[in-house]
Amino acid sequence: MSKMLAEFIGTFTLVLFGCGSAVLGGFDNVGQLGISIAFGGAIIAMAYGIGSISGCHVNPAVSLAAFIAGRMNGRDMVTYWVAQFAGALAAAAVLAVVSGQTTNLGQNGFGPGYLGEFSMQSALLFEIVMTALFVIVILGSTSEKAPAGFAGVAIGVTLAVIHIVGIQVTGVSVNPARSFGPAVLVGGPALAHLWLFFVAPAIGAVIGALLYRVRLLA
Amino acid sequence: MSKMLAEFIGTFTLVLFGCGSAVLGGFDNVGQLGISIAFGGAIIAMAYGIGSISGCHVNPAVSLAAFIAGRMNGRDMVTYWVAQFAGALAAAAVLAVVSGQTTNLGQNGFGPGYLGEFSMQSALLFEIVMTALFVIVILGSTSEKAPAGFAGVAIGVTLAVIHIVGIQVTGVSVNPARSFGPAVLVGGPALAHLWLFFVAPAIGAVIGALLYRVRLLA
Amino acid sequence: MSKMLAEFIGTFTLVLFGCGSAVLGGFDNVGQLGISIAFGGAIIAMAYGIGSISGCHVNPAVSLAAFIAGRMNGRDMVTYWVAQFAGALAAAAVLAVVSGQTTNLGQNGFGPGYLGEFSMQSALLFEIVMTALFVIVILGSTSEKAPAGFAGVAIGVTLAVIHIVGIQVTGVSVNPARSFGPAVLVGGPALAHLWLFFVAPAIGAVIGALLYRVRLLA
Amino acid sequence: MSKMLAEFIGTFTLVLFGCGSAVLGGFDNVGQLGISIAFGGAIIAMAYGIGSISGCHVNPAVSLAAFIAGRMNGRDMVTYWVAQFAGALAAAAVLAVVSGQTTNLGQNGFGPGYLGEFSMQSALLFEIVMTALFVIVILGSTSEKAPAGFAGVAIGVTLAVIHIVGIQVTGVSVNPARSFGPAVLVGGPALAHLWLFFVAPAIGAVIGALLYRVRLLA
Repeated sequence: MSKMLAEFIGTFTLVLFGCGSAVLGGFDNVGQLGISIAFGGAIIAMAYGIGSISGCHVNPAVSLAAFIAGRMNGRDMVTYWVAQFAGALAAAAVLAVVSGQTTNLGQNGFGPGYLGEFSMQSALLFEIVMTALFVIVILGSTSEKAPAGFAGVAIGVTLAVIHIVGIQVTGVSVNPARSFGPAVLVGGPALAHLWLFFVAPAIGAVIGALLYRVRLLA
Repeated sequence: MSKMLAEFIGTFTLVLFGCGSAVLGGFDNVGQLGISIAFGGAIIAMAYGIGSISGCHVNPAVSLAAFIAGRMNGRDMVTYWVAQFAGALAAAAVLAVVSGQTTNLGQNGFGPGYLGEFSMQSALLFEIVMTALFVIVILGSTSEKAPAGFAGVAIGVTLAVIHIVGIQVTGVSVNPARSFGPAVLVGGPALAHLWLFFVAPAIGAVIGALLYRVRLLA
Repeated sequence: MSKMLAEFIGTFTLVLFGCGSAVLGGFDNVGQLGISIAFGGAIIAMAYGIGSISGCHVNPAVSLAAFIAGRMNGRDMVTYWVAQFAGALAAAAVLAVVSGQTTNLGQNGFGPGYLGEFSMQSALLFEIVMTALFVIVILGSTSEKAPAGFAGVAIGVTLAVIHIVGIQVTGVSVNPARSFGPAVLVGGPALAHLWLFFVAPAIGAVIGALLYRVRLLA
Repeated sequence: MSKMLAEFIGTFTLVLFGCGSAVLGGFDNVGQLGISIAFGGAIIAMAYGIGSISGCHVNPAVSLAAFIAGRMNGRDMVTYWVAQFAGALAAAAVLAVVSGQTTNLGQNGFGPGYLGEFSMQSALLFEIVMTALFVIVILGSTSEKAPAGFAGVAIGVTLAVIHIVGIQVTGVSVNPARSFGPAVLVGGPALAHLWLFFVAPAIGAVIGALLYRVRLLA
């Protein structure tokens, strides 16, 4: 129960902080760097705030990777997923109420009309590669051989940098729940593009986790 | 005595650094991101500078949360409050002297004429939710189960990100003392709006602390 | 095998994140500070993500310094070099595919037409001095006397600041592999200038490592 | 011998990184935030890079504070001073060579014609207060009661935030050596104003150190 609440709060915070920096902070006021730091900082906040309760996955792709790497059972994975999607949706709803609109809730996307207008192929490749690297950092920094305590910093910094690189490409997902929350409320293209932010992070998570599972990285 | 002095210096530093970044650094020069980092960085500075003396609350809402969570007695809470409000006021006075004016001391606010002109309802909701999350990070990262030493980094990063998200909404308080210092010297709307920055952080602190008190988070 | 894969992934990430911030993020969108944080953040990501496997050199000049300082044998150094150059080249290729061009892949350079148009002499001096300082931080922060675990943060922050200072001078290399990957695909001046980004980091690495080797620093 | 070399290298790096970010990076390119992060990041780099050798004072005011607080003898203080001033001067010389000019080497100042044109009184008050707080963070975070290892991060973040607040006021010194290096080569007003950046940091250091010496903070 504590674990599900922790994952709900953690994913809620990730979307509220990350998407909120664009929606309430304002893209022009905080810049692409500010939004990136908000996403990464949310991970640092929650890694130490709720990490000792649930491990702070706050991302269905990360729970999938933990399952594949043998660090979590399938049943727990599914309960984590429920909490993560619910938390992301709740945060998007809070942003909608505070900002009084549902056209911009920090939704992901690609193609004509979305930020840098990168193609679907570029978006797919970007999200797969970045999720794989993200998962490698998560599994490596939380292994017993890594220095204790630093994983939260490393993972948060990684997510921030992925955003610096990729906001123009897809807005950066690497996290199906983070994409789901805003897309459900915004609808339209955000919802039509949502499949990519389920498929690509899942593929990336599998690749990253398998490197540990087969002990190519160990 | 050391504890009260530490809380005085800590809250003094929070307001001097955070509000000072806007007043002396200049909103246009340092940007919304710079101001956010100044507030968050002040917490990191003081968490390690005076944290071993007083715990570095530097925020009456945090002391209230510590009291509700059973980590502090009521008498100490009140002495902490005195030191915190005094420190914030002293810092606002130093900023007034150095800048030679009392119209902009980094005061909080909302509604017409204040930054993003968000409504009172949005301001209230924002401050309640953000204070609750802030308190959750504080209580979680300083628990015995969390990695030792990292709380100061996590809490500082959290405050920085809350500012990235919310400067346009309320200027970000989540801390009655931080709002009190500038408001007393600036007067006018800042003083008229001060009630919200006492009420909302208090409600948020109670919510966050109760989650630990009733062991929904533990 | 794990070590070579780790160095490949680490150097791949350094170039994908660092050069990618300029290529995909966009110089105007993320700013010189954003690019600097991307390079430094990549080191923090990998130091904790793959550091326990290979030590996270991700830089032939660093492996050379480790060899001179007596922390690595010559044979391992050469295998690390192979993995590092391959990883950098692979990342540049991914950036070329995602961005659909090979004119800007974050290549290093100097002289007329390159950013601040600094002279070859300035570029040479800058890269030598900065690599020497970078190596001093690496060897010092990973020594047994330094606080355990913090090296990744210190080294990443150092690389970020070197970029803040020097992007206008050379785009900042201090790492032959990081220069090699983009230069091979971009060709032209980037390839013609590549020698400097092999020579200067090598000289700097020797200087920094000798200070430890002869125990002037110890 | 190692200690003096470490202090020389440390102060050299502080000035090369901090002042270099303004001189080579360019005020317009990296912004006031970038310069602030360069100064703070230099401290993080050196705290872990050479801290285990000399303690990483890299600042005559900090050595004075360590002396007053009873953590250093007078003879060592003077040898540290020599190394610190020499390192700062050497870094200013490298910046002059790389940039090919001596009109802007990141010199401190105040009054008409200097950035925000704050008065001498404001500059004096600012430097005294900020040095006192800086010294409190240094002495507190390096005390035996503070979490081991985090002092470098806390002190670096503190210096960064002081710069966010105060670059418009004095360019920020809180360090006589950092002011000395550029002033000697630039001359003119920088040299005429240099006295303030010896006097104010000294006063601030005495105030901060006395709070520990008399055990008001302990």
